[in-house]
Amino acid sequence: MDVRITVLPGDGVGPEVTAEAVACLKSVAERYGHRFEFQEALIGGAAVDATGDPLPEATLKACQGSDAVLLGAVGGPAWDKHPRDQRPESGLLRLRKALGLYANLRPVSVHPALEDASPLKPEVVRGTDLMFVRELSGGLYFGEPRSYSDQAAVNTLAYTRAEVERVAKMAFELASSRRKRLTSVDKANVLETSRLWRKVVDDLAPAYPDVAVQHAYVDSFAMSLITRPRDFDVVLTENLFGDILSDEAAVLAGSLGLLPSASLGGSVGLYEPIHGSAPDIAGQDRANPIGTILSAAMLLRHGLNLTAEAAELEAAVDQTLREGHGTGDLKGARQAHGTRSLGACVRERL
Amino acid sequence: MDVRITVLPGDGVGPEVTAEAVACLKSVAERYGHRFEFQEALIGGAAVDATGDPLPEATLKACQGSDAVLLGAVGGPAWDKHPRDQRPESGLLRLRKALGLYANLRPVSVHPALEDASPLKPEVVRGTDLMFVRELSGGLYFGEPRSYSDQAAVNTLAYTRAEVERVAKMAFELASSRRKRLTSVDKANVLETSRLWRKVVDDLAPAYPDVAVQHAYVDSFAMSLITRPRDFDVVLTENLFGDILSDEAAVLAGSLGLLPSASLGGSVGLYEPIHGSAPDIAGQDRANPIGTILSAAMLLRHGLNLTAEAAELEAAVDQTLREGHGTGDLKGARQAHGTRSLGACVRERL
Ligand SMILES: CC(C)[C@H](C(=O)O)[C@@H](O)C(=O)O
Ligand SMILES: CC(C)[C@H](C(=O)O)[C@@H](O)C(=O)O
Repeated sequence: MDVRITVLPGDGVGPEVTAEAVACLKSVAERYGHRFEFQEALIGGAAVDATGDPLPEATLKACQGSDAVLLGAVGGPAWDKHPRDQRPESGLLRLRKALGLYANLRPVSVHPALEDASPLKPEVVRGTDLMFVRELSGGLYFGEPRSYSDQAAVNTLAYTRAEVERVAKMAFELASSRRKRLTSVDKANVLETSRLWRKVVDDLAPAYPDVAVQHAYVDSFAMSLITRPRDFDVVLTENLFGDILSDEAAVLAGSLGLLPSASLGGSVGLYEPIHGSAPDIAGQDRANPIGTILSAAMLLRHGLNLTAEAAELEAAVDQTLREGHGTGDLKGARQAHGTRSLGACVRERL
Repeated sequence: MDVRITVLPGDGVGPEVTAEAVACLKSVAERYGHRFEFQEALIGGAAVDATGDPLPEATLKACQGSDAVLLGAVGGPAWDKHPRDQRPESGLLRLRKALGLYANLRPVSVHPALEDASPLKPEVVRGTDLMFVRELSGGLYFGEPRSYSDQAAVNTLAYTRAEVERVAKMAFELASSRRKRLTSVDKANVLETSRLWRKVVDDLAPAYPDVAVQHAYVDSFAMSLITRPRDFDVVLTENLFGDILSDEAAVLAGSLGLLPSASLGGSVGLYEPIHGSAPDIAGQDRANPIGTILSAAMLLRHGLNLTAEAAELEAAVDQTLREGHGTGDLKGARQAHGTRSLGACVRERL
């Protein structure tokens, strides 16, 4: 298989973690006889510094012309005072929008070797296996009108039926292929947008008779996620709630550094770890590359339909963790590694 | 002291828990020679059923004419299909707005006897002592325009400088009287309203030189709250974020049923537990009355300036928990009680 993958290292630890994931993809390609061509492009603060624009035209073009995009992370205090359209984050948001990525998949599972890495009791997190489906191109992040002045500011939370429907369908299908439970999270007792959300989910439900649907209020779900994480399977929610809840869910896994994501919906998918750019440890060979490596596995599966290859990469990660290897963020790890050496561990197990 | 307290039992377990808190307030009044006059009024679903309106005019008048308001809980599936202005929740929201209650104080601390009641490891939650200050009369809950149709829905998130300033000042003052740390939570890397929030907090900071201010993004804070709860003191945030995060924080304490709140800012304060109406256990003498009893203690302190009386009621709760008494929701409790008998336990220790 001949494929072209655009790599967007971004800011902070982004270059370090994408390097390890790319090396893993290269090993996989070699083993299976694929030709993966990688091209790097600028995004985020790095792009602002070089071009003044967090999403240069050339980057967008490169992404649109490739089969999949792998991203590290964007942002950092260096660009905090920039105007909105020159903030690293706005580059990422524009990229998600431009590629039509309306569904962000964030699996959160607890690795048996890391049951004790979490601040939660092992008996609470054990066996957790969640799939967040976060709406990614609507809601407060994109709603108009939006305005800022020193005296008043406005954001708009808007959803159309079509926007909710397409992401909800993806969640139903995922649930149907998994443990057949869908929890839709909203604040329908207060927000009109949440009432629509709930209505659309209810309207779709009869088309998926094998899936058990449950609605939860976001405040109460923020609690249930910690008290009984095993009770949930696929969790569907809107953009901002999904941002908050999927980060919260990271505590179950023991470290944000472990968790991957896939942003789907358009013709080209975007794969990125859910952690941020972590400027405080950038360039120190300390970042955990697993979240990005698992994002690369999602790229193989969802972006290139290479199921066996994805499974092999995931198995290598699994074995690495099982044998007690980890970076400093993993409390349960018995053998401490840097970013590069943990990446090498994974590749040795391919 | 002669005071008039309006009691709004509301729905579900509301009547049961307010009854215990009122009994505690009566004991305190007797011991200290105060005259507390209690008047009950309708709110929420109970008010809808009786009058068609979740906040009848008579209820609002009663609240406005009293020194403090004690509320149980509102809502339940029975009213889920009602139009918005006839939903129990809208009665509560209108009451908060009408009384000018812009600041919702939610203390979350971990009782030494209940360190093991939480899904978190005891060594993580031990010593946690947080004070959430949630903006309560602005943001997405109230913003206009708002609209709902089968095809599209809109909510508006708006804040003015004055709205942020008044609640932020209260948070700074609280921090100054506590451990002098203020964490302001926002999503300033994406939302204009959050940029204003952050700006106002930064502008106020020089007036409180003894308070150390820190900003956090809501997604990342949702995680830190669980991984290192002891690092925070006063947490200031907008309405919806505060709703989500303070419920999430309840897992630290071991049960939502323990936690009180005070809504302040106008001439009459509103005191209510943070738990909901829990219709599934309503009328079964199973609800935990402690959250409402501690709300009554906040009423004594913040509403009536009766500091010694508040401290005495809190001490009685403390002793009750320390001796291992609790309702079924408390995993650590060695002696199981119903709502009424746990309320009696507290009163015996006054
Ligand atoms: C960087 C930021 C804009 C982004 C978001 O909130 O979507 C990040 O937090 C994420 O969750 O991917
Ligand atoms: C009942 C509901 C409207 C309310 C809110 O979200 O404010 C509740 O969840 C709370 O936190 O007091």
